[in-house]
Amino acid sequence: MPFWQQDLESMSQEQIQKLQLKKIQNQVSKLYKDNTFFKKKLDDIQVKPGDIKSLEDVKYIPFTYKEDLRNNYPTGLVCGNWDNVIRIHMTSGTTGVPVAMAYTKNDLDVWADCMARNFVAGGLHSGDIVQQAHGLGLFTGGLGFHYGLERVGAKVIPTGSGGTERQLRLMKEWGTTVFTGTPSYALYLAEIAMEKGIDPVKDLKLRLGFHGGEPCTDEMRRRINERLGYTARGGGMRRCYGLTEMGGPMSMDCHYATGIHLWADHYMVEVINPDTGEYTPPGEPGELVLSNLSFEAMPILRYRTGDRVIVDFSPCPCGRTHPRITNFLGRVDDMLLVSGTNVFPSQVENVLLQQSELSENWQLMVGDNKGLHTLRVEVEPMPGVIISEKYIKDLEGKLHDFLEIRCKVVIMPVGSLARFEGKAVRVVDERKKI
Amino acid sequence: MPFWQQDLESMSQEQIQKLQLKKIQNQVSKLYKDNTFFKKKLDDIQVKPGDIKSLEDVKYIPFTYKEDLRNNYPTGLVCGNWDNVIRIHMTSGTTGVPVAMAYTKNDLDVWADCMARNFVAGGLHSGDIVQQAHGLGLFTGGLGFHYGLERVGAKVIPTGSGGTERQLRLMKEWGTTVFTGTPSYALYLAEIAMEKGIDPVKDLKLRLGFHGGEPCTDEMRRRINERLGYTARGGGMRRCYGLTEMGGPMSMDCHYATGIHLWADHYMVEVINPDTGEYTPPGEPGELVLSNLSFEAMPILRYRTGDRVIVDFSPCPCGRTHPRITNFLGRVDDMLLVSGTNVFPSQVENVLLQQSELSENWQLMVGDNKGLHTLRVEVEPMPGVIISEKYIKDLEGKLHDFLEIRCKVVIMPVGSLARFEGKAVRVVDERKKI
Repeated sequence: MPFWQQDLESMSQEQIQKLQLKKIQNQVSKLYKDNTFFKKKLDDIQVKPGDIKSLEDVKYIPFTYKEDLRNNYPTGLVCGNWDNVIRIHMTSGTTGVPVAMAYTKNDLDVWADCMARNFVAGGLHSGDIVQQAHGLGLFTGGLGFHYGLERVGAKVIPTGSGGTERQLRLMKEWGTTVFTGTPSYALYLAEIAMEKGIDPVKDLKLRLGFHGGEPCTDEMRRRINERLGYTARGGGMRRCYGLTEMGGPMSMDCHYATGIHLWADHYMVEVINPDTGEYTPPGEPGELVLSNLSFEAMPILRYRTGDRVIVDFSPCPCGRTHPRITNFLGRVDDMLLVSGTNVFPSQVENVLLQQSELSENWQLMVGDNKGLHTLRVEVEPMPGVIISEKYIKDLEGKLHDFLEIRCKVVIMPVGSLARFEGKAVRVVDERKKI
Repeated sequence: MPFWQQDLESMSQEQIQKLQLKKIQNQVSKLYKDNTFFKKKLDDIQVKPGDIKSLEDVKYIPFTYKEDLRNNYPTGLVCGNWDNVIRIHMTSGTTGVPVAMAYTKNDLDVWADCMARNFVAGGLHSGDIVQQAHGLGLFTGGLGFHYGLERVGAKVIPTGSGGTERQLRLMKEWGTTVFTGTPSYALYLAEIAMEKGIDPVKDLKLRLGFHGGEPCTDEMRRRINERLGYTARGGGMRRCYGLTEMGGPMSMDCHYATGIHLWADHYMVEVINPDTGEYTPPGEPGELVLSNLSFEAMPILRYRTGDRVIVDFSPCPCGRTHPRITNFLGRVDDMLLVSGTNVFPSQVENVLLQQSELSENWQLMVGDNKGLHTLRVEVEPMPGVIISEKYIKDLEGKLHDFLEIRCKVVIMPVGSLARFEGKAVRVVDERKKI
């Protein structure tokens, strides 16, 4: 399998560490000089840029939290010359102040290179015809994928999300070989294809899918592969990773699928105990902490991602030497606290999708019955399948075993639950907000 | 006012002609060698590439029609190495087979440069913060604007269309100085701003707008300027021009607003009598015929745009020496044939928007009453304005004078007609299709 930037992707550990030290020293100096927020943070703990003499000393740099980005919205964390900024992206901000990221031309180049590395590691080449169905706009996902695909030199058909029948028509007309979009949209595409009498495996030439925007379980990926007749890469949970605070989507698994490659020449990876802030022993789970080593406009250092992961720092069989997220144990943001129990929606999905009788259309309703939290799983069966009362009871038992909390299962008519062309919304929390 | 590529934009006529001859000879040779459709066309009339010895000989190259692009969809007109194609755009194809365009990296660069020239000629600079609200996707408009803005080095906030309240919030938070989107969306933005108690003139920092995607009359532009407190450029009808067959949006007016600059180093301009195919005398109206001199992937030569224009080949006061469309008399596609009379929707808009009592929310219903075509103009008044029966009669009289056909005016309740975040749909043709 080819590389996008072989020299950089297969650097020795020593080279990586040397480069990282130089780059983080540079970022700290620049931020200290240019950014009042960062300078105050360092001054408060009486650290000077010159104190970072080795990678050991990185632990003296204060953490950055999501709240820091929100409190300094929109431009409080911009560093260097504002005139060089040529792009702004941000989160939707539906749950509060958005998190924004500013980019120079060079930042966009770094980002596109990281995405190009991911795509090439996953098997994309310049002969591919790609339908790019992540929505193009303020979110980092769409343009992040677009510029990465363009950098590889693939033929990009920038459909954006939606227009499912047209997506299928274009796949036939152009002989599209690669699809990019959310995993739930890939499954919806397969559903509409079948309705329209198109057999994706026989009638389309898809060979690869790159999925971002939302997590998907191994079982969901298996269904995508089976129904669209391609190999799905990315798609969260050990396969795709990124966040606006680090610039957007940045990492994916390669064709060996041994974990998500984090590009260490551009991002420094630390894994800490979220309670103490100390490093966890190698191979142990902990919170992922990332530093952006290359961005000029808004370099965020030691960002507390809130994501619980296991990182493997040994080389991958593919020849890439950078660290990999081998286990993604959950994003703290996605976790629900239900009557004192932690529930990850991905756990529910894992149980549901192991049932061949059930479709991938489901939602989790969290309610409140006089102070007692309730969980209700609504799920559609596969078309034509009749679900018995006993089956429902068994499924409730499995969910209880797995979640350690009781939840009610309701079988919904086929086609009654919402479909999603972008990110799927699986959780409806009807509890009163305090 | 600065230039983007001063040397190229202010070449002498002699230099332009010399360059054009070299480039069109190159395109003809390449197409003849690489494209069977074009080769057959030339062979049929016994013309060889070597026969094009001067610009006089360009008239021997056969015209290309929209039907040629449709009949050869998707890739029949691609020229050269398909491997070098990295982007595909196309029209919606709602009225039939889409028109598609393929681009190499170099083609995208040429396109971005043309757009950058337009923006700089209109007053944009790298310090501007731009909210880009043309929808990003398969249409050429969105990514065409995006790459041009990026090339200038302006700070692009790629909102895409829609999310109007959020657009306004971002304008306040980021101090946005430039808005790009359809003219009708600009007016809708102003409407929502007023509803939300935001005075765009006082509360926002907008200073320029670049509008594409649909024509707008001078009166509509005046209203945009007044309500959003900025200078609107582009927006069709003597201000912005482009078509998928030539790669997308490509031309706009400069700050002198003397006509749309057509970049003659990349596009050859001819004006012909649509019936005879002969050149019209300089300064006379005729059909615009364009040849793409620089594109590699799919160069279209002598394309019959169907647009009736007057072109001025003399230099503009801004110093740019390329030809300008000084009068845009109508796009044949937009023309309605109503009981034997040609009606352009822009004529209706022109009459309506001269009435200060009327809003810019209107639509034209074309009906059929036992074989007799009918025209009904539905329009909302400005909020709070009461329209009398006499006023309606007078307006019907004005429309009759202007259109030379009778039409009925119906005043609609404020807020009852559709608003558009993208291209406005003004004509509803309810006649039976034959």
